[in-house]
Amino acid sequence: MRTKKISAAVVRRLPIYLRVLEEATRDGDKELMSSQELGEKAGVSPALVRKDLAWFGEFGKQGVGYDIETLRTELRRILHLDRDIPIALVGVGSLGEALVRYFRRRYSLDPGFHLNIVAVFDADPEKQGQDIEGLPVQAPELIPERAKELGIRMAIVAVPPDAAQMVVDALVGAGIRLLFNFAPVKLTVPEDVHIINADLSLELQRLAYYLED
Amino acid sequence: MRTKKISAAVVRRLPIYLRVLEEATRDGDKELMSSQELGEKAGVSPALVRKDLAWFGEFGKQGVGYDIETLRTELRRILHLDRDIPIALVGVGSLGEALVRYFRRRYSLDPGFHLNIVAVFDADPEKQGQDIEGLPVQAPELIPERAKELGIRMAIVAVPPDAAQMVVDALVGAGIRLLFNFAPVKLTVPEDVHIINADLSLELQRLAYYLED
Repeated sequence: MRTKKISAAVVRRLPIYLRVLEEATRDGDKELMSSQELGEKAGVSPALVRKDLAWFGEFGKQGVGYDIETLRTELRRILHLDRDIPIALVGVGSLGEALVRYFRRRYSLDPGFHLNIVAVFDADPEKQGQDIEGLPVQAPELIPERAKELGIRMAIVAVPPDAAQMVVDALVGAGIRLLFNFAPVKLTVPEDVHIINADLSLELQRLAYYLED
Repeated sequence: MRTKKISAAVVRRLPIYLRVLEEATRDGDKELMSSQELGEKAGVSPALVRKDLAWFGEFGKQGVGYDIETLRTELRRILHLDRDIPIALVGVGSLGEALVRYFRRRYSLDPGFHLNIVAVFDADPEKQGQDIEGLPVQAPELIPERAKELGIRMAIVAVPPDAAQMVVDALVGAGIRLLFNFAPVKLTVPEDVHIINADLSLELQRLAYYLED
């Protein structure tokens, strides 16, 4: 049940908190973590940790900290990472192929990852039928059928800029509401569709700020 | 001259503002932009736009807005994107190769991009000598020599996790202070080195929050 509207900035930090807790679980040397420590490891202030997590309930105890296992389970649930999420990828160019390999390997190595690319599509007939990490490349016309069959809820778009809007329309038409876009172009989607634009250029540009004259 | 310490969150938004202004320049239909419009297009509040830009000087005029050309030139200068920045990439696996292609094409298509991959390295002798987008793959031992010769100031790390720290040490040893890391591993760097971790998994996990039950 989500009655409150949580800001995108808060949501952005949740996977970071989760990762800190997963690492603490792997290290396994303690049961509690203070907001101070969680903030330090996540790169934010302890006050922000407490404020962010308060949106979802009362997890911490003053002067004691958070129970690592409880908060980790709760964050997994909030992020829907307590179950497998079937994902499609469209566009098997060099970036698309690299992304399939990257995410398939993450999935197979980390049992808690749960983000599972289950189908890949490309409009190029030459590529169709080829195998990438055990998945055959399929024609984009098959997206609606496969989406239904495999329960696909999320898609990664790695096609050239001029094909991106068409592909996004097809994915949205197939009922997919969560999109991760790598095409460097502004896309139009209905209001109930969430799209994250992975813009690697913006990250490099940000880094350039720190160049010393 | 940088006397104030600007937060990473502010720096993160500067390339987004710059992009909005570049687009406005391309459309070329007006000379001024309000903080309202700039905020809307950048996905932040007008108040935050004004607050962010105030760190760098007095750019806007109340009730009039920002002069697009002036602010754009100023942001380019602040981000050091008023000149070419030579970049090295280490690790020519599927992701590394895709990144070289992606950034080289961005650079050749957009004369304002200025982020220029000029050398690629890989430890695999089989890959050395191969050509990627016009660049020969070189042995990592050559990093210090090439860094000096080509004036490399920034590096992209796309090696497997277990090689990442060694590669980062070599890059830092060669005087490179700006790193963009794609290896899903925590790296240790001296205090004067800036490292951005591109974590595609965190982005996908964030998207999963919006899954409907």
